[in-house]
Amino acid sequence: MAADPRFHPAGPPLTLQDLAAIAGGELQGDDPSRRMAGVGPLQSAGPDEVSFLDNRKYAALLDSTRAGAVVLAAEFAPRVPVGTAAIVTAQPYLAFGRIAARLHPPPASKPGIHASAVIDPTATVAPGCEIGAYAVIGAHAEIGAGCVVAPHACIGPGVVLGEGCRIGPHASITHCLVGRGVVLHPGARIGQEGFGFAVTPEGRFETMPQLGRVILGDFVEIGANSCVDRGSQGDTVLGAGTRLDNLVQIGHNVRTGRGCVIVAQVGIAGSATLGDGVQVAAQAGMVGHITVGDRARIGAQAGVMNDVPAGQDVVGSPAWPARETLRAFATLRRLAAKPGAKAG
Amino acid sequence: MAADPRFHPAGPPLTLQDLAAIAGGELQGDDPSRRMAGVGPLQSAGPDEVSFLDNRKYAALLDSTRAGAVVLAAEFAPRVPVGTAAIVTAQPYLAFGRIAARLHPPPASKPGIHASAVIDPTATVAPGCEIGAYAVIGAHAEIGAGCVVAPHACIGPGVVLGEGCRIGPHASITHCLVGRGVVLHPGARIGQEGFGFAVTPEGRFETMPQLGRVILGDFVEIGANSCVDRGSQGDTVLGAGTRLDNLVQIGHNVRTGRGCVIVAQVGIAGSATLGDGVQVAAQAGMVGHITVGDRARIGAQAGVMNDVPAGQDVVGSPAWPARETLRAFATLRRLAAKPGAKAG
Amino acid sequence: MAADPRFHPAGPPLTLQDLAAIAGGELQGDDPSRRMAGVGPLQSAGPDEVSFLDNRKYAALLDSTRAGAVVLAAEFAPRVPVGTAAIVTAQPYLAFGRIAARLHPPPASKPGIHASAVIDPTATVAPGCEIGAYAVIGAHAEIGAGCVVAPHACIGPGVVLGEGCRIGPHASITHCLVGRGVVLHPGARIGQEGFGFAVTPEGRFETMPQLGRVILGDFVEIGANSCVDRGSQGDTVLGAGTRLDNLVQIGHNVRTGRGCVIVAQVGIAGSATLGDGVQVAAQAGMVGHITVGDRARIGAQAGVMNDVPAGQDVVGSPAWPARETLRAFATLRRLAAKPGAKAG
Repeated sequence: MAADPRFHPAGPPLTLQDLAAIAGGELQGDDPSRRMAGVGPLQSAGPDEVSFLDNRKYAALLDSTRAGAVVLAAEFAPRVPVGTAAIVTAQPYLAFGRIAARLHPPPASKPGIHASAVIDPTATVAPGCEIGAYAVIGAHAEIGAGCVVAPHACIGPGVVLGEGCRIGPHASITHCLVGRGVVLHPGARIGQEGFGFAVTPEGRFETMPQLGRVILGDFVEIGANSCVDRGSQGDTVLGAGTRLDNLVQIGHNVRTGRGCVIVAQVGIAGSATLGDGVQVAAQAGMVGHITVGDRARIGAQAGVMNDVPAGQDVVGSPAWPARETLRAFATLRRLAAKPGAKAG
Repeated sequence: MAADPRFHPAGPPLTLQDLAAIAGGELQGDDPSRRMAGVGPLQSAGPDEVSFLDNRKYAALLDSTRAGAVVLAAEFAPRVPVGTAAIVTAQPYLAFGRIAARLHPPPASKPGIHASAVIDPTATVAPGCEIGAYAVIGAHAEIGAGCVVAPHACIGPGVVLGEGCRIGPHASITHCLVGRGVVLHPGARIGQEGFGFAVTPEGRFETMPQLGRVILGDFVEIGANSCVDRGSQGDTVLGAGTRLDNLVQIGHNVRTGRGCVIVAQVGIAGSATLGDGVQVAAQAGMVGHITVGDRARIGAQAGVMNDVPAGQDVVGSPAWPARETLRAFATLRRLAAKPGAKAG
Repeated sequence: MAADPRFHPAGPPLTLQDLAAIAGGELQGDDPSRRMAGVGPLQSAGPDEVSFLDNRKYAALLDSTRAGAVVLAAEFAPRVPVGTAAIVTAQPYLAFGRIAARLHPPPASKPGIHASAVIDPTATVAPGCEIGAYAVIGAHAEIGAGCVVAPHACIGPGVVLGEGCRIGPHASITHCLVGRGVVLHPGARIGQEGFGFAVTPEGRFETMPQLGRVILGDFVEIGANSCVDRGSQGDTVLGAGTRLDNLVQIGHNVRTGRGCVIVAQVGIAGSATLGDGVQVAAQAGMVGHITVGDRARIGAQAGVMNDVPAGQDVVGSPAWPARETLRAFATLRRLAAKPGAKAG
């Protein structure tokens, strides 16, 4: 099914030649001046739409596709049917994404400040920003050029946004310095007090002042309703390019390296440190004050209680190296499957 | 304790005869014209309040109840004390719910558009809608008759709401077609970009355009702060009558059948497909691209890594069929309990 | 690193003598009239800043600290270098928190009602409150003296807030009676309908009227984007001093005692009852209708299926007493580690 034009209007059609250039790919087998108007899946794309093949398990869909063009790896090009162009590249998924973004460009921002936005007189909003209805921007905040602040977003006092950030509806952000091109999805919560308190001799809890900040590197993305608490002392830091999915919890003083991927509903407790390129699958958790090395991978629902070396894969709760855990589960299954199994 | 009239004002009292009719039950043992004013639990309901018994473990509470009437199954009717009426039905819980909804009717909506709502001139709002303070409704959106849009809700451009929907405070909804009678609780996030990106040869992440929609069937309900991402290509679909509890995550291109029940903090990864009547207990997770058959049941905190056949119950992480998992845990407990247990 | 004055402006400097009094500690080794201007960690605090030592594993940092003063236990006082004062106390963490709160006082509230706030004419707002931009306060709500209601907070009809509460941006609260000094962090959802429905003979779901309330005791704190559903009949109750971290789910009719600690992403199902001082670690879950005794501790990611006695520690999913579970895991590891392991 093609994209619904109510939500994803198509831009001007582009020639196969242009699309191949956008993709960094090689055009095979059709008129380079033929124009494509949109994108669609192999099963349903029409003759003016571009599709892609990235997973060999779907290669059979090529035989019956009616797509105008397909982005794919060289080995599959011979299977493209007559009447369909091939755009050949070593990275079909990436290349297709670039084509899709050109044929269905995201809506252009509409620079301007809605009359209902409440912007403190000491805040600065650089040229080219779109500030939506009922947005609130606090004292001394600085909004970089070309930012889009959606309706109902709240930007706290002193917050600095770099150029080209997009702040979603109902997102709130305080005590934070934000790089360029950062995206907060709806309802993201950045910079609130972390969960820190001392216990009095009488057993009452007293909040520890949370005197740090949040630092979001360039191109960080934070999913809907995710939470990033500010540091208690020092900062909570998400390295450049790091992406959080929805409903993720990041405790105070957590630090990640560059390009980490944190999937939905993960929780990372206070003062944990992640290296570069760490991947944390959905619903995993980490206790505080541990270190996870570069490019380690944490499995879904894992419970990480100890440091993880660089490059290590861990799974399970408590988390162990993946190979050992899988062997343990297999052992348990085998024992349980034998009704006469005894312990020794 | 009776319902607090500040929050749940009682409607006009109703006769036992009327209440029996509402319940689809049979009135036994009292003046049919006697009027009831509210509802309450067996332990505390007074002579003008209706209570219910649905669980035989609480049957002893009948002996001392002062309720004016009790909704229950026929077998318990003989235990109802003198002075208390019995409303006998095969579905006491359902019947009681219907009575409660009549004695404490939800507040009537107050059709009208608050002066502070920002409604794009190209949007259409059908008659009988209540649009709250600071609601924002985007270009070309269509709001069906009798909808209630709470204060601070944001409805994006092009969104279509069927008749009689209720959109809670601070909810946001974009790129979505919504059926009749759909309920979004506060802070629900519908239609934002899913978590999809390609990796460049240099190792950077590039967002894949998310060109689909969300389709919510009739009478779908979405809990507070839950998130439903729109499709990447094609749609994310929740079938008619499906209910999500709070803090649930639904990834892009997930499809559920009709009448699924998804309990709090569940996460379902992209492109998973659920049949009709699937039940997913709290905090369970599912990986992407799997299929769960009709009426399968997924246990709390389960981690579903593979397809689940129709009607199957699975538990554990990774999830196995419930019987096998329980046997495995029992085996492990037994082995661990024997201090002299050896491996072979 | 000292606190960023953009976000955490320092108050007037205070003398060591005053700080020792605030800490309830004993000043050792420096001019009591010397003034401190802020706080910082041992590694980076300067001569006009106060630091602390609470964990013996960091004691070596004392040797090279340049802090003006360090709050610590008596046994470490001899290691404080010349030029640094010691403030000696049996509770260094608590004492340091009190000092930090005085040197970096939280921003004073600015009593007044923003012109854009929508306050129902029947609501009452006591003196000294700060009501932010676009806040909405419903009919007959009562806001106690000195409350701070942040921009975009929604307070429903009839809600009562005690003195000195802080309601964060985008928080929503309905059907709720709130004690003194209660804090809701951004996006918290209090009082919405719980997840309750009956099934009709035709298999449709009908919502059960949710006729209860939420009762929040004095000094309760609720984290960002956490959800507390109101009771179905009767109330959902969080006892005085109880603290919830971010993204926590509390089902209808849950009751906690005083001083419970519920860490991020925990889910507690309907009608569970917790005693006083219960601690629930991150991502744990509890089924409904169970009882957890006073001062029990639930481990991270535990799945509690049954009652837990007072003082018991449980871990694992399903949760068992901690000692037994750790033994079971050790057994499993041992079995799995022996390639020749057989079942019998």
